[in-house]
Amino acid sequence: MNKAVGAFITFEGGEGSGKTTQIHLLKERLKSAGRDVITTREPGGTPEAEKIRDFLVQREGGNWSPMAEALLLFAGRTMHVDNLIKPAIAAGKIVISDRFADSTRAYQGFGHGLGLEKIDEMNRLCLGDFAPDMTFILDIPAEKGLLRAEKRLREAGSGEDRFERLDLSFHERLRQGYLEIARSNPGRCIVINADDVPESIAAVIGRHTQERIADVR
Amino acid sequence: MNKAVGAFITFEGGEGSGKTTQIHLLKERLKSAGRDVITTREPGGTPEAEKIRDFLVQREGGNWSPMAEALLLFAGRTMHVDNLIKPAIAAGKIVISDRFADSTRAYQGFGHGLGLEKIDEMNRLCLGDFAPDMTFILDIPAEKGLLRAEKRLREAGSGEDRFERLDLSFHERLRQGYLEIARSNPGRCIVINADDVPESIAAVIGRHTQERIADVR
Repeated sequence: MNKAVGAFITFEGGEGSGKTTQIHLLKERLKSAGRDVITTREPGGTPEAEKIRDFLVQREGGNWSPMAEALLLFAGRTMHVDNLIKPAIAAGKIVISDRFADSTRAYQGFGHGLGLEKIDEMNRLCLGDFAPDMTFILDIPAEKGLLRAEKRLREAGSGEDRFERLDLSFHERLRQGYLEIARSNPGRCIVINADDVPESIAAVIGRHTQERIADVR
Repeated sequence: MNKAVGAFITFEGGEGSGKTTQIHLLKERLKSAGRDVITTREPGGTPEAEKIRDFLVQREGGNWSPMAEALLLFAGRTMHVDNLIKPAIAAGKIVISDRFADSTRAYQGFGHGLGLEKIDEMNRLCLGDFAPDMTFILDIPAEKGLLRAEKRLREAGSGEDRFERLDLSFHERLRQGYLEIARSNPGRCIVINADDVPESIAAVIGRHTQERIADVR
Protein backbone atom coordinates (compact mmCIF):
# COMPACT_ATOMS: atom_id res chain seq x y z
CA MET A 1 0.00 0.00 0.00
CA ASN A 2 1.25 3.48 -0.88
CA LYS A 3 1.79 5.93 1.88
CA ALA A 4 -1.15 8.26 1.32
CA VAL A 5 -0.32 11.91 0.77
CA GLY A 6 -3.19 14.29 1.39
CA ALA A 7 -4.39 16.66 -1.31
CA PHE A 8 -6.89 19.45 -1.77
CA ILE A 9 -8.85 19.61 -5.04
CA THR A 10 -11.45 22.29 -5.75
CA PHE A 11 -14.16 22.53 -8.40
CA GLU A 12 -15.22 25.91 -9.70
CA GLY A 13 -17.60 27.17 -12.34
CA GLY A 14 -20.82 29.04 -12.95
CA GLU A 15 -24.33 27.76 -12.39
CA GLY A 16 -25.17 24.60 -14.33
CA SER A 17 -21.56 23.75 -15.09
CA GLY A 18 -22.00 20.26 -13.65
CA LYS A 19 -19.72 20.48 -10.59
CA THR A 20 -21.86 18.19 -8.42
CA THR A 21 -21.83 15.36 -10.96
CA GLN A 22 -18.09 15.64 -11.62
CA ILE A 23 -17.21 15.76 -7.92
CA HIS A 24 -19.21 12.56 -7.40
CA LEU A 25 -17.48 10.83 -10.32
CA LEU A 26 -13.97 11.89 -9.23
CA LYS A 27 -14.66 10.79 -5.67
CA GLU A 28 -15.72 7.33 -6.87
CA ARG A 29 -12.64 7.07 -9.08
CA LEU A 30 -10.29 8.00 -6.25
CA LYS A 31 -12.02 5.64 -3.83
CA SER A 32 -11.64 2.82 -6.36
CA ALA A 33 -7.92 3.64 -6.38
CA GLY A 34 -7.92 3.02 -2.63
CA ARG A 35 -7.85 6.64 -1.52
CA ASP A 36 -9.69 8.11 1.45
CA VAL A 37 -11.81 10.96 0.04
CA ILE A 38 -13.85 13.69 1.74
CA THR A 39 -16.19 15.94 -0.21
CA THR A 40 -17.25 19.32 1.13
CA ARG A 41 -18.62 22.62 -0.15
CA GLU A 42 -18.50 26.38 0.13
CA PRO A 43 -20.01 28.49 1.41
CA GLY A 44 -20.20 26.00 4.26
CA GLY A 45 -18.46 22.78 5.16
CA THR A 46 -18.50 23.29 8.94
CA PRO A 47 -21.43 24.24 11.22
CA GLU A 48 -20.33 27.88 11.58
CA ALA A 49 -19.64 28.31 7.88
CA GLU A 50 -23.01 26.77 6.99
CA LYS A 51 -24.60 29.67 8.92
CA ILE A 52 -22.87 32.03 6.49
CA ARG A 53 -24.35 29.99 3.65
CA ASP A 54 -27.82 30.56 5.11
CA PHE A 55 -27.09 34.31 5.23
CA LEU A 56 -25.95 34.59 1.67
CA VAL A 57 -27.62 31.83 -0.31
CA GLN A 58 -31.02 31.75 1.36
CA ARG A 59 -30.94 35.54 1.83
CA GLU A 60 -31.93 35.30 5.50
CA GLY A 61 -29.44 37.94 6.47
CA GLY A 62 -30.37 40.99 4.41
CA ASN A 63 -28.67 42.72 1.51
CA TRP A 64 -24.91 42.62 1.98
CA SER A 65 -22.49 44.65 -0.11
CA PRO A 66 -19.92 42.72 -2.20
CA MET A 67 -17.18 43.71 0.29
CA ALA A 68 -19.22 42.51 3.28
CA GLU A 69 -20.12 39.31 1.41
CA ALA A 70 -16.44 38.63 0.73
CA LEU A 71 -15.62 39.14 4.44
CA LEU A 72 -18.43 36.79 5.51
CA LEU A 73 -17.26 34.19 3.00
CA PHE A 74 -13.68 34.38 4.24
CA ALA A 75 -14.87 34.17 7.86
CA GLY A 76 -16.55 30.87 7.00
CA ARG A 77 -13.56 29.82 4.89
CA THR A 78 -11.01 30.23 7.69
CA MET A 79 -13.15 27.96 9.89
CA HIS A 80 -13.57 25.45 7.05
CA VAL A 81 -9.81 25.36 6.41
CA ASP A 82 -8.78 25.16 10.08
CA ASN A 83 -11.39 22.67 11.28
CA LEU A 84 -11.95 20.41 8.29
CA ILE A 85 -9.67 20.83 5.25
CA LYS A 86 -6.21 21.07 6.87
CA PRO A 87 -6.78 18.24 9.42
CA ALA A 88 -8.08 15.96 6.64
CA ILE A 89 -5.09 16.67 4.38
CA ALA A 90 -2.73 16.09 7.32
CA ALA A 91 -4.42 12.70 7.84
CA GLY A 92 -3.57 11.72 4.25
CA LYS A 93 -7.05 12.25 2.81
CA ILE A 94 -8.02 13.83 -0.49
CA VAL A 95 -10.42 16.70 0.13
CA ILE A 96 -12.66 17.73 -2.79
CA SER A 97 -14.52 21.01 -2.31
CA ASP A 98 -17.43 22.28 -4.38
CA ARG A 99 -16.18 25.91 -4.61
CA PHE A 100 -13.43 27.66 -2.63
CA ALA A 101 -11.67 31.05 -2.72
CA ASP A 102 -11.82 31.31 -6.53
CA SER A 103 -15.61 31.59 -6.20
CA THR A 104 -15.16 34.77 -4.15
CA ARG A 105 -12.70 36.04 -6.76
CA ALA A 106 -15.16 35.27 -9.57
CA TYR A 107 -18.49 36.25 -7.94
CA GLN A 108 -17.58 39.20 -5.69
CA GLY A 109 -14.38 40.21 -7.49
CA PHE A 110 -15.52 40.02 -11.13
CA GLY A 111 -19.30 39.50 -11.09
CA HIS A 112 -20.09 42.13 -8.47
CA GLY A 113 -17.19 44.42 -9.39
CA LEU A 114 -15.20 44.45 -6.13
CA GLY A 115 -12.01 43.76 -8.10
CA LEU A 116 -9.44 41.03 -7.76
CA GLU A 117 -6.90 43.01 -5.72
CA LYS A 118 -9.05 43.33 -2.58
CA ILE A 119 -9.99 39.64 -2.67
CA ASP A 120 -6.36 38.59 -3.13
CA GLU A 121 -5.33 40.78 -0.19
CA MET A 122 -8.10 39.27 1.97
CA ASN A 123 -7.02 35.81 0.87
CA ARG A 124 -3.40 36.41 1.93
CA LEU A 125 -4.53 37.89 5.24
CA CYS A 126 -6.87 34.97 6.00
CA LEU A 127 -5.16 31.94 4.49
CA GLY A 128 -1.50 32.93 4.06
CA ASP A 129 -0.12 30.77 1.26
CA PHE A 130 -2.62 27.96 1.70
CA ALA A 131 -4.26 27.11 -1.65
CA PRO A 132 -5.73 24.08 -3.43
CA ASP A 133 -3.28 21.64 -5.03
CA MET A 134 -5.44 21.65 -8.13
CA THR A 135 -8.57 23.47 -9.24
CA PHE A 136 -10.89 22.34 -12.02
CA ILE A 137 -12.72 25.22 -13.63
CA LEU A 138 -15.75 23.82 -15.45
CA ASP A 139 -16.31 26.16 -18.34
CA ILE A 140 -19.58 26.44 -20.21
CA PRO A 141 -21.23 29.30 -22.15
CA ALA A 142 -23.20 31.35 -19.59
CA GLU A 143 -26.55 30.97 -21.37
CA LYS A 144 -26.24 27.19 -21.61
CA GLY A 145 -25.27 26.89 -17.94
CA LEU A 146 -28.19 29.03 -16.81
CA LEU A 147 -30.66 26.96 -18.82
CA ARG A 148 -29.32 23.77 -17.22
CA ALA A 149 -29.45 25.30 -13.73
CA GLU A 150 -32.99 26.61 -14.18
CA LYS A 151 -34.16 23.22 -15.35
CA ARG A 152 -32.60 21.57 -12.30
CA LEU A 153 -34.21 24.11 -9.96
CA ARG A 154 -37.68 23.62 -11.42
CA GLU A 155 -37.31 19.87 -10.99
CA ALA A 156 -36.02 20.09 -7.43
CA GLY A 157 -38.23 22.92 -6.11
CA SER A 158 -35.14 24.28 -4.36
CA GLY A 159 -35.28 27.33 -2.11
CA GLU A 160 -31.90 28.57 -3.33
CA ASP A 161 -33.04 31.34 -5.61
CA ARG A 162 -29.86 33.38 -5.64
CA PHE A 163 -28.77 33.07 -9.24
CA GLU A 164 -32.23 33.53 -10.66
CA ARG A 165 -31.97 37.17 -9.58
CA LEU A 166 -28.83 37.76 -11.57
CA ASP A 167 -28.87 38.41 -15.25
CA LEU A 168 -27.01 36.89 -18.15
CA SER A 169 -24.39 39.67 -18.29
CA PHE A 170 -23.46 38.85 -14.68
CA HIS A 171 -22.86 35.24 -15.62
CA GLU A 172 -20.80 36.28 -18.60
CA ARG A 173 -18.58 38.44 -16.34
CA LEU A 174 -18.30 35.44 -14.03
CA ARG A 175 -17.16 33.19 -16.86
CA GLN A 176 -14.55 35.70 -18.06
CA GLY A 177 -13.44 36.09 -14.43
CA TYR A 178 -12.87 32.36 -14.06
CA LEU A 179 -10.87 32.28 -17.30
CA GLU A 180 -8.70 35.15 -16.05
CA ILE A 181 -8.14 33.39 -12.71
CA ALA A 182 -7.04 30.31 -14.67
CA ARG A 183 -4.61 32.36 -16.80
CA SER A 184 -3.10 33.89 -13.63
CA ASN A 185 -2.71 30.50 -11.92
CA PRO A 186 -1.61 28.08 -14.64
CA GLY A 187 0.14 25.77 -12.17
CA ARG A 188 -3.02 25.19 -10.15
CA CYS A 189 -6.03 25.76 -12.41
CA ILE A 190 -7.21 23.53 -15.24
CA VAL A 191 -10.02 24.79 -17.46
CA ILE A 192 -12.30 21.94 -18.48
CA ASN A 193 -14.77 22.19 -21.35
CA ALA A 194 -18.00 21.38 -19.49
CA ASP A 195 -20.19 21.47 -22.61
CA ASP A 196 -19.90 17.72 -23.16
CA VAL A 197 -21.36 14.48 -21.79
CA PRO A 198 -20.49 13.83 -18.11
CA GLU A 199 -18.51 10.66 -18.86
CA SER A 200 -16.15 12.44 -21.29
CA ILE A 201 -15.60 15.31 -18.85
CA ALA A 202 -14.94 12.82 -16.04
CA ALA A 203 -12.31 11.05 -18.15
CA VAL A 204 -10.42 14.32 -18.72
CA ILE A 205 -10.61 15.25 -15.02
CA GLY A 206 -9.50 11.76 -14.00
CA ARG A 207 -6.48 11.91 -16.30
CA HIS A 208 -5.38 15.32 -14.97
CA THR A 209 -5.81 14.13 -11.37
CA GLN A 210 -3.73 11.03 -12.05
CA GLU A 211 -0.93 13.12 -13.59
CA ARG A 212 -0.78 15.58 -10.73
CA ILE A 213 -1.45 13.59 -7.60
CA ALA A 214 1.44 11.22 -7.23
CA ASP A 215 -0.08 8.15 -5.68
CA VAL A 216 -3.37 7.91 -7.56
CA ARG A 217 -2.88 4.83 -9.72
CA MET B 1 -27.14 79.23 13.39
CA ASN B 2 -23.78 77.57 12.78
CA LYS B 3 -23.34 75.52 9.68
CA ALA B 4 -23.30 72.00 11.16
CA VAL B 5 -20.23 69.91 10.43
CA GLY B 6 -20.72 66.19 10.94
CA ALA B 7 -18.52 64.21 13.30
CA PHE B 8 -17.98 60.64 14.41
CA ILE B 9 -17.31 59.95 18.10
CA THR B 10 -16.76 56.47 19.50
CA PHE B 11 -16.80 55.13 23.05
CA GLU B 12 -14.62 52.20 23.99
CA GLY B 13 -13.85 50.29 27.16
CA GLY B 14 -14.23 46.98 28.93
CA GLU B 15 -17.38 45.63 30.57
CA GLY B 16 -18.84 47.87 33.26
CA SER B 17 -16.87 50.93 32.20
CA GLY B 18 -20.07 53.00 31.93
CA LYS B 19 -20.19 53.63 28.18
CA THR B 20 -23.99 53.57 27.95
CA THR B 21 -24.44 56.24 30.63
CA GLN B 22 -21.76 58.50 29.18
CA ILE B 23 -23.10 58.20 25.62
CA HIS B 24 -26.52 59.25 26.88
CA LEU B 25 -25.10 62.23 28.76
CA LEU B 26 -22.95 63.42 25.82
CA LYS B 27 -25.89 63.06 23.46
CA GLU B 28 -28.06 65.25 25.70
CA ARG B 29 -25.30 67.82 26.00
CA LEU B 30 -24.81 68.02 22.23
CA LYS B 31 -28.55 68.20 21.60
CA SER B 32 -28.80 71.07 24.09
CA ALA B 33 -26.14 72.82 22.01
CA GLY B 34 -28.46 72.49 19.02
CA ARG B 35 -26.73 69.59 17.31
CA ASP B 36 -28.41 66.71 15.51
CA VAL B 37 -27.10 63.54 17.19
CA ILE B 38 -27.44 59.87 16.28
CA THR B 39 -26.38 57.10 18.65
CA THR B 40 -25.55 53.63 17.40
CA ARG B 41 -23.63 50.55 18.50
CA GLU B 42 -21.34 47.75 17.44
CA PRO B 43 -21.55 44.96 16.72
CA GLY B 44 -24.70 46.12 14.95
CA GLY B 45 -26.18 49.43 13.97
CA THR B 46 -27.84 48.26 10.74
CA PRO B 47 -30.12 45.24 10.16
CA GLU B 48 -27.39 43.14 8.54
CA ALA B 49 -24.80 44.01 11.17
CA GLU B 50 -27.26 43.21 13.98
CA LYS B 51 -27.35 39.66 12.59
CA ILE B 52 -23.62 39.47 13.24
CA ARG B 53 -24.28 40.65 16.79
CA ASP B 54 -26.70 37.74 17.24
CA PHE B 55 -23.98 35.37 15.99
CA LEU B 56 -21.29 36.61 18.31
CA VAL B 57 -22.98 38.04 21.40
CA GLN B 58 -25.87 35.64 21.77
CA ARG B 59 -23.69 32.77 20.54
CA GLU B 60 -26.31 31.55 18.07
CA GLY B 61 -23.71 30.97 15.42
CA GLY B 62 -21.28 28.49 16.98
CA ASN B 63 -17.71 28.83 18.15
CA TRP B 64 -15.81 31.17 15.88
CA SER B 65 -12.04 31.58 15.93
CA PRO B 66 -10.68 35.08 16.74
CA MET B 67 -9.77 35.55 13.06
CA ALA B 68 -13.24 34.56 11.87
CA GLU B 69 -14.81 36.78 14.56
CA ALA B 70 -12.75 39.74 13.35
CA LEU B 71 -13.86 39.11 9.75
CA LEU B 72 -17.52 38.89 10.79
CA LEU B 73 -17.19 42.09 12.81
CA PHE B 74 -15.62 43.95 9.89
CA ALA B 75 -18.32 42.60 7.53
CA GLY B 76 -20.93 44.21 9.79
CA ARG B 77 -18.76 47.31 10.22
CA THR B 78 -18.47 48.02 6.48
CA MET B 79 -22.29 47.92 6.23
CA HIS B 80 -22.63 50.12 9.31
CA VAL B 81 -20.18 52.69 7.93
CA ASP B 82 -21.60 52.73 4.38
CA ASN B 83 -25.31 52.70 5.23
CA LEU B 84 -25.51 54.67 8.48
CA ILE B 85 -22.36 56.41 9.72
CA LYS B 86 -21.04 58.07 6.55
CA PRO B 87 -24.45 59.30 5.31
CA ALA B 88 -25.22 60.79 8.75
CA ILE B 89 -21.85 62.59 8.93
CA ALA B 90 -22.39 63.89 5.39
CA ALA B 91 -25.76 65.27 6.52
CA GLY B 92 -24.03 67.28 9.28
CA LYS B 93 -24.96 64.96 12.15
CA ILE B 94 -22.83 63.87 15.07
CA VAL B 95 -22.73 60.08 15.23
CA ILE B 96 -21.86 58.51 18.58
CA SER B 97 -21.12 54.79 18.49
CA ASP B 98 -20.95 52.43 21.46
CA ARG B 99 -17.83 50.54 20.27
CA PHE B 100 -16.15 50.54 16.84
CA ALA B 101 -12.96 49.13 15.29
CA ASP B 102 -10.91 49.62 18.49
CA SER B 103 -13.10 46.96 20.11
CA THR B 104 -11.92 44.43 17.52
CA ARG B 105 -8.32 45.57 18.16
CA ALA B 106 -8.79 45.17 21.92
CA TYR B 107 -10.95 42.01 22.08
CA GLN B 108 -9.74 39.90 19.14
CA GLY B 109 -6.30 41.52 18.78
CA PHE B 110 -5.21 41.70 22.42
CA GLY B 111 -7.76 39.70 24.46
CA HIS B 112 -7.93 36.69 22.15
CA GLY B 113 -4.32 36.96 20.95
CA LEU B 114 -4.82 37.54 17.21
CA GLY B 115 -2.38 40.47 17.33
CA LEU B 116 -2.79 44.07 16.27
CA GLU B 117 -1.11 43.75 12.86
CA LYS B 118 -3.78 41.53 11.30
CA ILE B 119 -6.60 43.74 12.63
CA ASP B 120 -4.91 46.89 11.34
CA GLU B 121 -4.47 45.29 7.92
CA MET B 122 -8.12 44.24 7.88
CA ASN B 123 -9.11 47.75 8.94
CA ARG B 124 -7.20 49.33 6.06
CA LEU B 125 -8.62 46.85 3.58
CA CYS B 126 -12.21 47.40 4.76
CA LEU B 127 -12.33 51.06 5.76
CA GLY B 128 -9.36 52.70 4.01
CA ASP B 129 -8.47 55.76 6.08
CA PHE B 130 -11.94 56.21 7.58
CA ALA B 131 -11.69 56.51 11.39
CA PRO B 132 -13.53 58.24 14.25
CA ASP B 133 -12.80 61.94 14.81
CA MET B 134 -12.45 61.21 18.48
CA THR B 135 -12.53 58.10 20.65
CA PHE B 136 -13.15 58.07 24.41
CA ILE B 137 -11.58 55.09 26.10
CA LEU B 138 -13.28 54.62 29.46
CA ASP B 139 -10.63 53.10 31.69
CA ILE B 140 -11.39 51.22 34.89
CA PRO B 141 -9.55 48.42 36.74
CA ALA B 142 -10.74 45.12 35.21
CA GLU B 143 -11.98 43.68 38.50
CA LYS B 144 -14.07 46.75 39.31
CA GLY B 145 -15.60 46.83 35.84
CA LEU B 146 -16.53 43.17 35.97
CA LEU B 147 -18.22 43.58 39.35
CA ARG B 148 -20.28 46.48 37.96
CA ALA B 149 -21.21 44.55 34.83
CA GLU B 150 -22.22 41.44 36.76
CA LYS B 151 -24.43 43.49 39.03
CA ARG B 152 -26.13 45.09 36.04
CA LEU B 153 -26.70 41.70 34.40
CA ARG B 154 -28.27 40.19 37.51
CA GLU B 155 -30.63 43.15 37.74
CA ALA B 156 -31.56 43.08 34.05
CA GLY B 157 -31.79 39.31 33.53
CA SER B 158 -30.01 39.87 30.21
CA GLY B 159 -29.35 37.04 27.76
CA GLU B 160 -25.98 38.48 26.80
CA ASP B 161 -23.71 36.16 28.71
CA ARG B 162 -20.59 36.64 26.66
CA PHE B 163 -18.27 38.22 29.16
CA GLU B 164 -19.27 35.95 31.99
CA ARG B 165 -17.40 33.20 30.17
CA LEU B 166 -14.16 35.11 30.12
CA ASP B 167 -11.84 35.34 33.06
CA LEU B 168 -10.21 38.26 34.82
CA SER B 169 -6.88 37.84 33.04
CA PHE B 170 -8.73 38.30 29.72
CA HIS B 171 -10.15 41.59 30.96
CA GLU B 172 -6.74 42.71 32.12
CA ARG B 173 -5.28 42.02 28.66
CA LEU B 174 -8.20 43.97 27.23
CA ARG B 175 -7.49 46.97 29.44
CA GLN B 176 -3.78 46.97 28.56
CA GLY B 177 -4.77 46.63 24.90
CA TYR B 178 -6.97 49.72 25.06
CA LEU B 179 -4.18 51.70 26.73
CA GLU B 180 -1.75 50.65 23.99
CA ILE B 181 -4.27 51.64 21.29
CA ALA B 182 -4.56 55.05 22.97
CA ARG B 183 -0.76 55.47 23.05
CA SER B 184 -0.56 54.61 19.33
CA ASN B 185 -3.35 57.05 18.41
CA PRO B 186 -2.82 60.13 20.58
CA GLY B 187 -4.52 62.45 18.09
CA ARG B 188 -7.76 60.48 18.19
CA CYS B 189 -7.98 58.63 21.51
CA ILE B 190 -8.61 60.15 24.92
CA VAL B 191 -8.29 57.90 27.96
CA ILE B 192 -10.89 58.81 30.59
CA ASN B 193 -10.68 57.67 34.20
CA ALA B 194 -14.03 55.89 34.50
CA ASP B 195 -13.62 55.06 38.19
CA ASP B 196 -15.52 58.18 39.27
CA VAL B 197 -19.12 59.41 39.55
CA PRO B 198 -20.93 59.70 36.17
CA GLU B 199 -21.37 63.50 36.41
CA SER B 200 -17.64 64.14 36.84
CA ILE B 201 -16.77 61.81 33.96
CA ALA B 202 -19.41 63.53 31.79
CA ALA B 203 -17.90 66.93 32.54
CA VAL B 204 -14.45 65.79 31.37
CA ILE B 205 -15.89 64.21 28.20
CA GLY B 206 -17.97 67.31 27.49
CA ARG B 207 -14.93 69.57 27.79
CA HIS B 208 -12.84 67.42 25.41
CA THR B 209 -15.70 67.29 22.89
CA GLN B 210 -16.10 71.07 23.00
CA GLU B 211 -12.37 71.56 22.40
CA ARG B 212 -12.22 69.22 19.45
CA ILE B 213 -15.49 69.63 17.61
CA ALA B 214 -15.55 73.16 16.26
CA ASP B 215 -19.16 74.14 16.43
CA VAL B 216 -20.19 72.70 19.76
CA ARG B 217 -20.72 75.78 21.89
